[in-house]
Amino acid sequence: MKVGGVPYRSIWRDGAGGVVVIDQTRLPHAFATRTLRDEEDCAAAIRTMTVRGAPLIGAVGAYGLAMALADDPGDAALERAYAALLATRPTAVNLRWALDQVRAAAKALAPARRAAAALACADALCEADVATNAAIGDHGLGLVRQAWDAKARRGPVNILTHCNTGWIACVDWGTALGIVYKAHDSGVPVHVWVDETRPRNQGGALTTWELANHGVPFTLIADNAGAHFMQRGQVDLCLVGADRVTAQGDVCNKIGTYMKALAAREAAIPFHVALPRSTIDWTIESGAAIEIEERSPEEVTHITGADEDGRLVRVRLTPPGTPAANPAFDVTPAELVTSFITEHGVFAPSALGRLRPVSAATPPATPAGAPGSCRA
Amino acid sequence: MKVGGVPYRSIWRDGAGGVVVIDQTRLPHAFATRTLRDEEDCAAAIRTMTVRGAPLIGAVGAYGLAMALADDPGDAALERAYAALLATRPTAVNLRWALDQVRAAAKALAPARRAAAALACADALCEADVATNAAIGDHGLGLVRQAWDAKARRGPVNILTHCNTGWIACVDWGTALGIVYKAHDSGVPVHVWVDETRPRNQGGALTTWELANHGVPFTLIADNAGAHFMQRGQVDLCLVGADRVTAQGDVCNKIGTYMKALAAREAAIPFHVALPRSTIDWTIESGAAIEIEERSPEEVTHITGADEDGRLVRVRLTPPGTPAANPAFDVTPAELVTSFITEHGVFAPSALGRLRPVSAATPPATPAGAPGSCRA
Repeated sequence: MKVGGVPYRSIWRDGAGGVVVIDQTRLPHAFATRTLRDEEDCAAAIRTMTVRGAPLIGAVGAYGLAMALADDPGDAALERAYAALLATRPTAVNLRWALDQVRAAAKALAPARRAAAALACADALCEADVATNAAIGDHGLGLVRQAWDAKARRGPVNILTHCNTGWIACVDWGTALGIVYKAHDSGVPVHVWVDETRPRNQGGALTTWELANHGVPFTLIADNAGAHFMQRGQVDLCLVGADRVTAQGDVCNKIGTYMKALAAREAAIPFHVALPRSTIDWTIESGAAIEIEERSPEEVTHITGADEDGRLVRVRLTPPGTPAANPAFDVTPAELVTSFITEHGVFAPSALGRLRPVSAATPPATPAGAPGSCRA
Repeated sequence: MKVGGVPYRSIWRDGAGGVVVIDQTRLPHAFATRTLRDEEDCAAAIRTMTVRGAPLIGAVGAYGLAMALADDPGDAALERAYAALLATRPTAVNLRWALDQVRAAAKALAPARRAAAALACADALCEADVATNAAIGDHGLGLVRQAWDAKARRGPVNILTHCNTGWIACVDWGTALGIVYKAHDSGVPVHVWVDETRPRNQGGALTTWELANHGVPFTLIADNAGAHFMQRGQVDLCLVGADRVTAQGDVCNKIGTYMKALAAREAAIPFHVALPRSTIDWTIESGAAIEIEERSPEEVTHITGADEDGRLVRVRLTPPGTPAANPAFDVTPAELVTSFITEHGVFAPSALGRLRPVSAATPPATPAGAPGSCRA
């Protein structure tokens, strides 16, 4: 997608053995890139959240392992680097998966051939992520076009979205936002209502930045406002991503998603969830069983922004010592979801099972929609 | 209610012809009082939002008019001061109503007796506001006690509230928060989930400040989180205020209220609206007809807080020039309201009409629940 009119991915090779990423800790207040030249650079980029978003973290980890192998391709070095990179974000499923792919590709070969194979594997993971998201976007585009036709092509399709599901969380396109880009680039006029997405403001800081740079019309709103616009006919459809979807189609996603789904049902507005198939957790039926991550209260009581002089300042919004709860996700029951938009097509919740592996006990070696497999 | 253990009202006479108010522009970061000694002090306090909340603005306006009459009790001076005070917040219905009361009380008398009568009238308005809110609190207390009994008095009653409906917006008690204080003071254990209430953060800044100072247990949450806690059984009832209620019971209140009502219905949690009868607008049936005030986009894109050194700093949260929409209120349909808690008792939406004046064309000279009448 574009930054100031120039096409970008969130990560690319620099031609000299390193990779370049966008420093996301400085967005939206500055656009700066960082070149990662060795394993430690990659580990630090993940640890400090210079990069974020599950697929992008996986890609940076994969390149980090490849760089480690360029320094020392031996078995001991491989295992040490694998462990070091995994420890940067130990709960990131995508990171482990990507590291597993690169390690397997390398270990199958003699040490002398490992570095090149690992680098090729990391490249392949990135390309597969782009292809998955592009396919999600193409399938979702059909729904946006239908919505445009349904309003007799009068005015843009008004899409409400929550959090950041865009290209900077992935390698390119993004999931829900990937659909927005596909529609915009295809000439289907869209206008996006961007939920601010408290407390971390991924909508207000990142989705706005992405959309403004790519030239997609949008309006930022407080999370409180979405239902009002739905009630008054100013939203045509909702498009959100997912962190985890259960076998029956319950959607665990950024806190606040559930209320938007309730409001959409009340206003008879379609509520679509965009996701790669790898996001579906076939081991869980009901979302009620999902334990919700509780994050720091300071994400609610404090916030960082740019002062008049452009300096980043962290301010407290509440009385000192205010107790706050900060659940990171909520669960939207499947009955509130109109459809799941995946790289394999569009599925009603009742049809989600068609994506299930033949045997739940033996998931496919290459879960479609994961960032890709070097063995594919 | 209490500040640091000491009972306060939001406005009081200083014994030397002035009134003292709490400077609400500095909350929650500093507790400072300001003495208003003449009409111009009062006008400035309203204009600069040193005081906020419809009943409190009315009280300050009433005292301002009384102070003007102490300087010059003539008819011309009375009309000039009336107009000057009204112009400070021209759309504030309570302010006009309070000024009308004081002017009428004064004009009925010879100039020499006007200042004392006006001051007595302002005092009476304040006392009437306290009595109205105390009555709302007493009626609501019954519902909170029922909820406590319904959970076999195991643990506190978990009350979710939105925005600030507390004593600093009134003279004392408050509406929805008045009920919380009545319950707490009566020994019914309560715990309040405080919605942050973006974009102006009245919950995060003011409700937290009030509750902490009075010693009521509470937890601040992002507006996004309420439905999650309802879904997981951690909310026993919702208590909100209202800016305007239509004849059929549709509730215009702070943006975000509507989604909380949807979530409460989904979780079978009672959703109560606390209000003085004067908030009901008998001239409108449906809330769909209410035009919603659109406020500055900068309330969404920028925010003010205290930096490390306690200095107030305004920061930008978004890319520069981000377009934002900022509707101040939304409409919750009557069907989502469990009951209206007024100074006259508790009413289901279908019974709201019992509060209607006999002839809609001739509302009672003293609308019950307005800050009070000097002629009563």
